Order: sequence, then C-alpha cells, then structure tokens
Amino acid sequence: MTHPSPSAEIPAKQGAIIELIAYNPNDYEKIDANHIDEIISQLKPNCVNWINIDGLYDTSVIEKIQQHFNLHTLLIDDVLNDQRPKYEEYDDYLFFSMKMLYSLNSGQIEYERISFVLGDNYLITFQEKEGDLFNAFRERIRLDQGRVRKRKADYLLYRLIDIVIDNYYNILENIGDQIEEIEDSLNENQSSHTFARIQRLKKELIYLAKAVFPLRDALSGLLKEKAGFLDEENDRFFADVYDHVIHLIDSLDTYKDLTASLMDIHFNTQNNQLNKVIKVLTIISTIFIPLTFIVGVYGMNFKHMPEIDWVYGYPVVWTIMIVMSVSMLVYFRYKNWF
Amino acid sequence: MTHPSPSAEIPAKQGAIIELIAYNPNDYEKIDANHIDEIISQLKPNCVNWINIDGLYDTSVIEKIQQHFNLHTLLIDDVLNDQRPKYEEYDDYLFFSMKMLYSLNSGQIEYERISFVLGDNYLITFQEKEGDLFNAFRERIRLDQGRVRKRKADYLLYRLIDIVIDNYYNILENIGDQIEEIEDSLNENQSSHTFARIQRLKKELIYLAKAVFPLRDALSGLLKEKAGFLDEENDRFFADVYDHVIHLIDSLDTYKDLTASLMDIHFNTQNNQLNKVIKVLTIISTIFIPLTFIVGVYGMNFKHMPEIDWVYGYPVVWTIMIVMSVSMLVYFRYKNWF
Amino acid sequence: MTHPSPSAEIPAKQGAIIELIAYNPNDYEKIDANHIDEIISQLKPNCVNWINIDGLYDTSVIEKIQQHFNLHTLLIDDVLNDQRPKYEEYDDYLFFSMKMLYSLNSGQIEYERISFVLGDNYLITFQEKEGDLFNAFRERIRLDQGRVRKRKADYLLYRLIDIVIDNYYNILENIGDQIEEIEDSLNENQSSHTFARIQRLKKELIYLAKAVFPLRDALSGLLKEKAGFLDEENDRFFADVYDHVIHLIDSLDTYKDLTASLMDIHFNTQNNQLNKVIKVLTIISTIFIPLTFIVGVYGMNFKHMPEIDWVYGYPVVWTIMIVMSVSMLVYFRYKNWF
Amino acid sequence: MTHPSPSAEIPAKQGAIIELIAYNPNDYEKIDANHIDEIISQLKPNCVNWINIDGLYDTSVIEKIQQHFNLHTLLIDDVLNDQRPKYEEYDDYLFFSMKMLYSLNSGQIEYERISFVLGDNYLITFQEKEGDLFNAFRERIRLDQGRVRKRKADYLLYRLIDIVIDNYYNILENIGDQIEEIEDSLNENQSSHTFARIQRLKKELIYLAKAVFPLRDALSGLLKEKAGFLDEENDRFFADVYDHVIHLIDSLDTYKDLTASLMDIHFNTQNNQLNKVIKVLTIISTIFIPLTFIVGVYGMNFKHMPEIDWVYGYPVVWTIMIVMSVSMLVYFRYKNWF
Amino acid sequence: MTHPSPSAEIPAKQGAIIELIAYNPNDYEKIDANHIDEIISQLKPNCVNWINIDGLYDTSVIEKIQQHFNLHTLLIDDVLNDQRPKYEEYDDYLFFSMKMLYSLNSGQIEYERISFVLGDNYLITFQEKEGDLFNAFRERIRLDQGRVRKRKADYLLYRLIDIVIDNYYNILENIGDQIEEIEDSLNENQSSHTFARIQRLKKELIYLAKAVFPLRDALSGLLKEKAGFLDEENDRFFADVYDHVIHLIDSLDTYKDLTASLMDIHFNTQNNQLNKVIKVLTIISTIFIPLTFIVGVYGMNFKHMPEIDWVYGYPVVWTIMIVMSVSMLVYFRYKNWF
Repeated sequence: MTHPSPSAEIPAKQGAIIELIAYNPNDYEKIDANHIDEIISQLKPNCVNWINIDGLYDTSVIEKIQQHFNLHTLLIDDVLNDQRPKYEEYDDYLFFSMKMLYSLNSGQIEYERISFVLGDNYLITFQEKEGDLFNAFRERIRLDQGRVRKRKADYLLYRLIDIVIDNYYNILENIGDQIEEIEDSLNENQSSHTFARIQRLKKELIYLAKAVFPLRDALSGLLKEKAGFLDEENDRFFADVYDHVIHLIDSLDTYKDLTASLMDIHFNTQNNQLNKVIKVLTIISTIFIPLTFIVGVYGMNFKHMPEIDWVYGYPVVWTIMIVMSVSMLVYFRYKNWF
Repeated sequence: MTHPSPSAEIPAKQGAIIELIAYNPNDYEKIDANHIDEIISQLKPNCVNWINIDGLYDTSVIEKIQQHFNLHTLLIDDVLNDQRPKYEEYDDYLFFSMKMLYSLNSGQIEYERISFVLGDNYLITFQEKEGDLFNAFRERIRLDQGRVRKRKADYLLYRLIDIVIDNYYNILENIGDQIEEIEDSLNENQSSHTFARIQRLKKELIYLAKAVFPLRDALSGLLKEKAGFLDEENDRFFADVYDHVIHLIDSLDTYKDLTASLMDIHFNTQNNQLNKVIKVLTIISTIFIPLTFIVGVYGMNFKHMPEIDWVYGYPVVWTIMIVMSVSMLVYFRYKNWF
Repeated sequence: MTHPSPSAEIPAKQGAIIELIAYNPNDYEKIDANHIDEIISQLKPNCVNWINIDGLYDTSVIEKIQQHFNLHTLLIDDVLNDQRPKYEEYDDYLFFSMKMLYSLNSGQIEYERISFVLGDNYLITFQEKEGDLFNAFRERIRLDQGRVRKRKADYLLYRLIDIVIDNYYNILENIGDQIEEIEDSLNENQSSHTFARIQRLKKELIYLAKAVFPLRDALSGLLKEKAGFLDEENDRFFADVYDHVIHLIDSLDTYKDLTASLMDIHFNTQNNQLNKVIKVLTIISTIFIPLTFIVGVYGMNFKHMPEIDWVYGYPVVWTIMIVMSVSMLVYFRYKNWF
Repeated sequence: MTHPSPSAEIPAKQGAIIELIAYNPNDYEKIDANHIDEIISQLKPNCVNWINIDGLYDTSVIEKIQQHFNLHTLLIDDVLNDQRPKYEEYDDYLFFSMKMLYSLNSGQIEYERISFVLGDNYLITFQEKEGDLFNAFRERIRLDQGRVRKRKADYLLYRLIDIVIDNYYNILENIGDQIEEIEDSLNENQSSHTFARIQRLKKELIYLAKAVFPLRDALSGLLKEKAGFLDEENDRFFADVYDHVIHLIDSLDTYKDLTASLMDIHFNTQNNQLNKVIKVLTIISTIFIPLTFIVGVYGMNFKHMPEIDWVYGYPVVWTIMIVMSVSMLVYFRYKNWF
Repeated sequence: MTHPSPSAEIPAKQGAIIELIAYNPNDYEKIDANHIDEIISQLKPNCVNWINIDGLYDTSVIEKIQQHFNLHTLLIDDVLNDQRPKYEEYDDYLFFSMKMLYSLNSGQIEYERISFVLGDNYLITFQEKEGDLFNAFRERIRLDQGRVRKRKADYLLYRLIDIVIDNYYNILENIGDQIEEIEDSLNENQSSHTFARIQRLKKELIYLAKAVFPLRDALSGLLKEKAGFLDEENDRFFADVYDHVIHLIDSLDTYKDLTASLMDIHFNTQNNQLNKVIKVLTIISTIFIPLTFIVGVYGMNFKHMPEIDWVYGYPVVWTIMIVMSVSMLVYFRYKNWF
C-alpha cells in the first residue's frame, strides 16, 4: 500500500539502528545494537524499557518485534505506511503516531513519521530515519534530571510527544518571522521574488495543517483512554499537550489569514505599478500625439497655406503648443495622475 | 429513475457475466456461467459463496437473484441506479455500494459503481461492466494465500473494499505528481496549456470528492453494524479501511488547496506577462513619440524658421534627442521597468 | 403575511379545482367537483381518500376543509403562504410541504408549492396551480398497477413525494448537460453570451438549493415520526426518498463547484483575449513608432543634412528600417508573443 | 458599558412615554401616563397588563419598574445596552430582546431594540424610541378581534414577536426587489451607480444577519422554556415564529449569494467595457500607425528617391494604403474584435 | 517553550511589582511590596486577598507563590508562556487566563496576557507588565462602592474579567469608527493610503479574533465549574460575561465582512481609475492618430499630387479633419466614455 504524501521520499534502504534505554529510579542502562534479538534479550522487567528503532526498511527487525510484543498486523501496517496522526487502543498496548518536523538549513521543513507503542513497562518508538529531537532528553534521563526516572513508561510517552510538539512551535515562529519579513519587503515595493515566497509559505502551511489538524483527534483519543496504560496523575500532562495542539491550530489559522492578506497586498502593489505605467504612457501620448499632429499640419506641402508665409507663424505655433502641454500637465496633476 | 452522474455513460446492453467462487479452508471451486440458474444450483452451504455479476442490463438475472436471496425492491433499485456510496442493513443481509476507480491511459479517471450484498455465507458483487481490480486477489484465494480461505464472507467483503480503496491511493498519488509537474511548468513560464490542465485537475478532484466523501458515512454505518453479519474479530480491519478513507479525505483537501495555489500562480504569471508587454509598449512610446514630435517640428514648412538655416541645427537636434532617450532609459532602469 | 420568493408570481385569482380519488384493493372512484361540499359528502370511510386541490385563492374551500378535517390555523397559514419545505406533526394528521419543479420550454424552472396533509384514511394535497406531475400515477391507481391500491394513505404520500423528487433529478441532469455545453463553448473561445448563461445557471442553483436543502430536515422529521401515521413497513421507502435528497444535495454542491470553475475559465479566456489584443497593439507600435521617427528625421528641412544629398541615403535608410523590423519580429517570436 | 452597533445613534434624551393596556375577556382599559407610579397603581391583578415604555433615558422610570417587579440588575443592563437578541429565564419572569426594523423613506433600514419581560399576568415592553409596529394590533385588542383577549400574557408576547418578524419579511422582500432592479440595470449596461447600490445592499444584508441570526438561538431558548410562563397550547405559535426565523435565515443566505453574483456581473461588465475600449485603441493604432509610417517615407527629403518623380507614385501609395486598411479590418472582423 | 505570538515582544527583565489588597465588608488594607515573602506573611484568612503581580521575569517570586499556594507546575508554565485564553480546574483552585487589550496612542492595539488563580479566599492575578485597567475599580473597593466588599473572591474574579472585556468593546467601537472613516474616504476617491489602512484593520481583526474566539470556550468551561469555587448567586454574572463574548464574536464577524467590502470598494475604485485613464488614452489616440496620418499624406513630396496645387486644398483638409474629430467626440459621448 502506498500513500501520496510530502514525506514519501524514501531514503536508501539500510539496516535499522536499534537502541534500548532501560531505567528505573535506581538503575540506568543504554544498549545500542544492530540485532533486535540482542535488545529483546536485554529487556528488564522491573525497568521502563524504551526501545528506539531508526529506519523501517529491515522487515526482519519489525517482524521480530511484532512477534515478541505480540503486535497486531494492522498496527505494523500503520508503522510502515504513511498515515495521518492516529491513536488506537489494543488489548495489551496503545498505538500513537505523529509527524516529527525538522527545519532544514534551506528553510524547508522535513517531515518524519514517528510511531509509539506503549505497553506495560515498555515504550517502542519507530522512526523513519536516523536522528531525532530527543538527544538532550536522553541525557536528562541518564543524569536523572527531572521527574522522568521516577515515573512509568506513560510519562516517557508524554515527554517525547511534548518535545516533538514544542518543535512545532519553533517552526511556526519561523513562519511568523517570514510573514513579517515579506510584509516589510512588500511595503518597500521590492516585489521581485515575494510572490514565490508567499506561495512557498502557503504550501508549507497547507502541509503543516495536514500534520497538525488530525493530531487533535489522535490526542483527544489518548486523553479518553480507558485501558489503564496512562496513570491518572499524568492526565494533566496529556491535557496540556492537547492544549498546545489547539494553540497550534489557532496559530495556523491566523497565519493562513495573514498569508492571504500578503497575497492581497502583492496583487495590489502589482496593480498599482501597472496603473502607474499606464498613466505614464497616457500622459506622454496625450501630450505629444496632438503636438505631433500640429507640426504635421505645417509640414503639409499645399501651395496655398497663408500661415506658412506669416513671419510670426513659427513662434505662434510654439506658443500654442507650450500652452497646450502646460494645461494638460496641470490637468493631470489636478487629477492626481502623478 | 435516472440520475446525473459522470459515470452515466451507459455501455451497450449486453448479457451479464456471472461467476461463482466457493471456498472453505479445504475446498475451492470456481464456476463461470451465462445462466444464473446454473450458479444458484451450485451454491455450497458449507462454503463462502462469492457471486460476481458483471453488467447490470440483463434484468432477468437480477430478478432471479432477487427472488432466490429474497432481496428488497429498493436494494435492487440501488444496485441498478447510480447512487452515492451507501450502507444499509436489512434483516437477512447487508448492502454496501461504492465507486471503483480506474485511471485510463488517457489520464482520465473512470468511475464504475460496485455494490455488495453480504449474507450469512454468501457475498454478491454487482459491477456495471466487465473487468475489475480483483484478479490478483482471486488468484490468492485459489492458491490459499493469506487469511481469506480461513475466514467468513465478511472478511471477503473487507478485502474487496480494501482493494478498491487502495487503488484510490494510486489515483491520488498520480494527481499529486501532476500538481508538482504543473507547478514546475508554471515556474518555467510555459503556461500555454497549464490553465486547461489545472482546470482538469480541479474537475477530477470535484468528482473524486463526490465518490470519497459519502464513503465516510457509509463505512461508519458499516462499523456500527449490530446485526451480527460482521465478526467482531474483523472490526479492526473495517476500522482500518475507515481510517484510510479519512486519510483520503485529508489528502483531497490538501490537493484542493494546492490546486487553488496553482490557479493563483497561473494568474500571477499571466499578470506579470501582461505587465511586461505594457511596459515594453510604454517604454517605446515614451521614448519615440516625443522624438517624432521634435523631428516633426523641423519638418514644418514655415518660411521663417531660424534654426533651419543654422549650420549646427541638425547635429544639435540629434544631440538633444540622444540625451532625452538616454535619460529616459536611465529613469526606466532606475524604476526597475526592465 | 407575504414572503419574498422566486415563486411568488401569483396567478390570477380563480376558483379552486377539487378532485377526489377514493380507492381500496377492490374499489376505485374519481370525482371532479367545483364544490368542496360535494367532495366531503362523498368521502368513503373504508377507502383511501386522496383529495387534491389546485388553486389556493378560494378561501371558502380552504375554510370548509379546515372545519371538516379540524385542521390547525397555523397549518392553513403554512398552506397559504410560501414557506420553506416543512414537516409538522399534529394530533390527528401530519403536515408536509415542499416545492414541485417544472422545467419550462424556455429553459427556466418554475417552482410550485405543494402541501400534504396525511390523516388516518385520507391525504389532502394543496397545489398553487392547475397541472402537476401525477397524471401517469393517477392512471396506475385506476388500472390497479403496482402496490398502491393494496396499501394505505401513507404509501400514497410516499409515492407522490417520490415522483416530485424524481423530477428534481431530471432538472439537475439538464443543468449538468448545460454545464458541459458551456464548457465546450468556452473552449471554442465563443464567449459571447456564455457569461450570462453561467450567471443564469448559478442563479438556478441558488434557488434549487433553497428548495432542496431544507427538504433534508423536513424528511428527516418525517422519518422519525412517532404518531403512527406511517406504517413501519413503509419506513424503507421514506428512508430511500431521504437518500435521494442527500444525493441531490451532493450533486448540487458538485454543480456549484463546476459552475465556479466555469467562471474561472470564462475570466481566464477574457484575460487571454485582452492579452492578445494588447500584444498586437504593442507589436505594431513597437515596430512602427521608431520607424516613423526615422522617416521623420529625414523629413526635416535643415539646410545642412549631409545624408540627404547622398545617393545611397534612401536605400540605406530602407535597409536599416527593414533590419530593425525583422529583428523585432524575431525577438517577439522568441518571447512567444505571437 | 457601550457597545459598537449600527443602531447606536442615540436620540436626544427625553422623558419616557409610558402606556398601560389592561384587558381580559370582559374588560379593557388603556392608560397613558408620564409617571410610572400612576401606571403601577393601576395594574389589575385579574387582567393581562401590557406596560409599554418608549425611550430608555429616564433612569428613574426604569428603576421604579425594576423595584416594583423585582427585576435583576443584569436584566436592566441588557434592556439599557445594545445586546444581541437574547433570551433568559429568571425565577419570576422571562426576558426576551430583539431588533425591531423600520424601512425609512430614504430606503435605509432603521434598527430599534425592543425588550420583553413576561411575568405571570404582565408583559413589559421596552422600546428605545417612540413609535412602533403595534398600532393596528392595539386596535384589535380594543375591539376584541381575534384570540388575544381570551388568552394570557404569553400569547400577547407571541403576537408582538410575530408582528416584528413579519415586518422582517417586508424588508427582505424589498431587498429582493432591489436585487432584481440592479440585475436589470446591469444587463442594460448602465453601471454608473450600480456598484454603490450593490455595496449598500451587501452592507444591509450584513447588518440584517447580525439582527436575525442570533434570533434563532434566542427563540430556540424560548421554545425550551420549562418555568411554566408559556402555556403549552401556545407552543405551536412560538414554533411557528421559530420556523419563520429559519426561513428568514435561508432567504438572507440566498440574497447574499445573489448579491455576490451581482458583483461578478458588475466586474464582468466593467471588464467587457475595458476590453472594448482597448480594442478600439488597438484597431485605430494598428491601422493608422503603419499608414503614418508610409506617408512619412515619402515625406523624406532625400535627393534620390525614384518613386517621388514617378507619375503614378501618389495613386499607387494610396492603393497600397487602402488595401492594407481593408485587409486589417477584415482580419479584426474575423477575430470578432468589433 | 516559546510560542509565536503578536504579544511576544518581551520587555526588559526587571523585578516584579507585587500588591496585596485584602478586604471584607468591614476591613480594607492595601500593601505594595517588592518582596513576595512580605506579602505572604500579610495574607488575612478572614478577608478576600487579591494578590496582583506585574512582571513575570523574576522567577523567584513565581516560585515562592507556587510553593505557598501549592500550584501545579503546568499552571505555572501556562502563566509564564503565551497561551490561548484558557480555563482549568485544579483541586484547590481554578485557573483562568485571557488577553488584556490596550489601544495605544499610535492607534495600534497592545496585547498583555493576564492570568487568574482563584482559591478559597484569594485571587492571584499575574500580568506581563506594569499598568492595567483596574485602577478605578481598586478605588471602588477602597471606598466600598458597589457590591464587591460584600462578596467573596469569585465576585472579584467576575468584576476583573468584566472590566477587561468591557475594554474590548471600546476597541471594537474604535475599529467600527475607522471602517466608516475609510468608507467615506473611499467614496471621496482619495485612495492614497486607504489600502494600507484596510490591511492594518484586517490584521487587527485577525489578532483580535485570536484573542476573543478561544475566550468563548474558556468562559463556557468556567460556567460549568463544579468544584464550588464559584458561588451559585454569581452564575448570572458569569453568564452575562459569556454573552458579552458571544456579542463580541458577532461583531468581529460583522467587521470582517465590512472590511472585505472595503477591499471590494477599493479595488473597484482602482479599476475605475484605470478605466478612465485608458479611456483618455484611447480618445486622444483615436482622434489624433488618423489626423496625423492625413496631414502626413499632404506632407509627401510626390511630384504629381493634384490636391497640393488646388487653392481650396488646405481649407478642405481642415474641414474634413474637424468633421472627423467632432463625430468621434459625439460617438464617444454617446458611448458614455466621458
């Protein structure tokens, strides 16, 4: 099953990178492995076991995990294929998936799918590619900073989701900055590449909406979870994450409206420039076409043209032409044409 | 009753092609027949009986099926007439209908209505025309691959719906590719036929929306089915199909927004070109119309024109004209007109 | 109370035409009368009595019916005044009203309000004007074709509503044909009267929406009827009519989108034509205005113009002018201006 | 607390005009007073007491009423300040407020807030200004026409709301007429002031929407009233008023769509005119600029121009010019430019 | 965590200003302090304690308050970070946050976040910056005017929210005035800076919507509060504030529609001006280009041009030219071009 999606650029097939972090208030262990069996054999029943898998193209890894944790076929389908953010309850675990966003140096945003499977004392995270936003947090676990070592796997899930969503804010802030930049450049009339920039922003907002809007439903499902995987004392934390998503949706709507305004400004600027160009054309034509007619009259070769022989003919024609031009200029000025 | 619909191009009336595939974990039989009686007499009570009918114009076939399976008149109306995707529960069977999509070589999408009637140990599929997306799947049944032989008729219904919807993804992916192609061609300023292409895309998205949006309601009805035709262990499968449809609707919305952006880009490009043309006109006119006036002045035939007789008259006029033209060019350059 | 409405063109006041069709599986009687008393005295308790009234301006008729059937004042108000499609339950009868559509020869659509009062063994239909869509159906009753003679008054109500709504399909189909016609004519660039045609379509769709959208609520009210006027075995029939209305609403939305696309195409065509006209103006001006300047130069009467006396002056100027024109044409061709 | 609102033009402060109409099936009394105490002392316990107050700027009147009927501070705030249409239940009375509309001779619509307080045997109506729509109805009460004398204060409330809403229909009908007028004038190409008229209509529809849309919520609150101030036998009457408001909302939406169409027609007409003007410019320029070049050629003063001396030179040039002009006209005609 | 927001311009870090107002019907005390400990030690158990904190950058203050009142970490996060308006119930207190608006002299609107924590006998208000809208109200408390001294902390909360929202009305009224001003200036055709003003208004309405729309949800949460912090007798007051917010939302929608109309008017005015300019160009060109051609004809130097030698040649040419110009002017007048 293939799905159309902006993040569907598939990296080269490569083996998965597997990492296990097992901790409880007293112990901490971190194991990197290339073989999933190694990891599975090291799981500690009295610890929170966080298994992170980078790269989803080694199906044997996925299959072994499926067997060991007894995961449903459809859940594995959802991990492997590009889906909208989603929450699903199973008998022995919860499934949650979302998009992790990176802003690349080029200014573009990269989307990576991340899926979570939360069981009794384990959390499995599936990522499409190597590299994520969690390194600082891994360090906090190791150093036993904050609450995480004292809590269960559901708190770990909360923290990871929270980190991903916090990064959405950074990306939105960056878009907000770009909107202000474009607005300034529009006011300075330098609309050379601004239209393309506005279009790129609009497109990014469309894709962001596709990543963020369904997150509301997924998180609201998580909030109503009944199976008992989420400790009641963590309810407020998940509710807080939900509020953040609502805030993000508000901001996306605001930015959408602002971008639409930018388009209006752009088209207005363009119109204004066209109007100015046409006014220049009209002023020049309106002044000089009649003058050219007048000089044409006295370029005629009729034998009998009394003015031709008149001594003051030439200066009088000049006077008439200057008076005409000046009155037209006054008229255009009065009409605010320039 | 006739309904306006893009798929209403009626093929030539011809007899129906009827096929029966009957299977259970141990047995498999496939019968092609031209006579419905033949098929009915071959139904196997301890098998899943999949009766497929291609072509709906031989009313005698439909009537015999109606009598044998005791189908409601309105259900038969729904099979025969073009309806929106629909789910309905009857006492002895479920009714489900949707559109099956093909992308033709010409790039156009063809819509064919497919209706399902699910009874205790049978599934009847009604198709408007010969040919469908199920051949690979028929082969899997024959070879006993996957789960299908081990399960009931409801799982067969799930698989067929899933295959149809998976093909929607292919079609959407194709549309996504076209959007990117058009965007590239717009940036390359080659907007000759792009407007027509954008319009065709928009039209296709409108028709796709008409096929996909009501599917949500129909599937959500199927999910809430109470009559017991659907095994509880298949609930997740139907829920998964439902999720796919929601994902499709999201994608349709995204593509709709992107197509609207393409329109903006097209109109902006068109505007830009018009502006450039008018600037060329204005530059040429603004430079040469005054010059033509000047040479006209010295084309006048007045007897008393002192400049005419002046030896340097001609070169001075040329100097004035060159200075005027150059300053105007500098001015237009400064104004960014070219 | 008067209400703004497209159907408010009031026909000349005239007496009402009253008709009674009374039937049961065995008997059938049809009475046309000018006096309502005559009709009332002929009602048959063991038959379904269908009283049809064409023309609502003879208030004495309405009053007598109100008294005999004990109808509520507000119901009579609703019959007499233009209301949106509406369903209302009373103690002794149901009220249902909708629009009956005719497509006139001129291509316009005429709207006529029709109201139904369904009692225990009677159905009263109030129509604004003579003439309706039911003549073929009246004949079916007389000849005892189909189910209608075997059933109660509620089935009669269903059939009449169904006939009215089936005609909506014809009208929509006609609009669909017009949309395709206009699209073809737009592509052939013959946009003389197309804008007016698109506007007329849009207006028709607006009025159709006003007739069809509230029908959903009214029919959904009818479907939830609890008072027992509707036989449970007819539930599916009314549900089917409801589905048809949903389908109509879908189609109206689709047509609205398609009409909006037509507008886009029209404006794009218009823009293209304007661009072409301006390009012609610019090409001609850009080529000939400089040339006119050049010939103007040698029309000057300066005494001292060396070129004038040069034997090759004239052919050289021609050469220069031809080279200029040809290079400009090549440039414009290269820029795709023609 | 001041609120932005179109009706916020405050009339000159003046005393309130107070009127009491007390009636039951047998008695009727009408008292006009300048002093609220006078009115209060005349209230009749076995009658329906309708107290009408015109002008809200004499706070002493309002305060005395508040004290006597024990009205809540916030209710008085709502009476005095411009609020959206609103319904509120209190222990001893109901509060309902809406806008009363007048169409002025100038064609503008005036908005006046009217508030109702319905108690056990009284109804208080607060109006911003003198003059209302109820005079004909006051006369009906006096003459004991219709049902009103036989019923309680809640029926009085219904009748007053109904009268106000019936006048909305008149105003909407007037807008409908204006839309048709504008459409006709647009087709006749006389678009001098039509744009301003369309804008005024749009603005009126915006303000009407602000008055009508919240009325739905307010009336729906009134319909669900539980406190027993509304007699059950009047339920249908309030439901009927509610239906009218829904109908009004439908009509407003229709008119909004039609007005948007008028804008499209206006812009299209404007575009067409611009296109025609530019075509005239292009035709004239395209024909005469080349001709002017040709005559310029033979205005050159070269010594050696063979054509000049040729006897047929002049007629041949004319022939060439006439052939050029005619072929261009034929070409433009063929291109449908005129 | 940083959030993109219009109010995110962070003032220079400075110490917080802390103020305690403690009151009951008999006592009143106001303490300004720089140290939070001082305030905490002065809290009076039998009084309502209103602690106001201006400036959120001294984390030590916030931390001490958190510890003393036992506030949740996430609540403190919400106080410190820019969130959408929000209501949340905790075991020992309620949390409510919103935006406080100021209209600056420059005409711009400044947004300041204000958060409320309501406990049993205290209300804490957190403000981003010094200065607020409550000074007049503080004076009323001191002088024991109105109800506030007789009531609990929840009434204080109501009053503060009400004051903030009342100021929204002032700001909206100001926007309404600006809309009318712009409309007038548009009709007077002085559209020099109006487009920029319309855009600024649109932007302000977008930001206002972001502040006001989520307030509805927050207040509706407050209205449904079950924990008992809000006295039932204050329910109507909070319901009244809620109604004000609904009214504000209505007004925002109305202003959004009116601003869209202003844009239409602006673009129409611009179009009209362009049309006029182009008409001037066309009229001048259409009259003088043919005339210039005619005089060019008689500027040709052919030896054999009979008209040249004709005595009446010159006056006849003038006559022809005048007749041509006048007929063209009459034609353009007839076509309503000027």
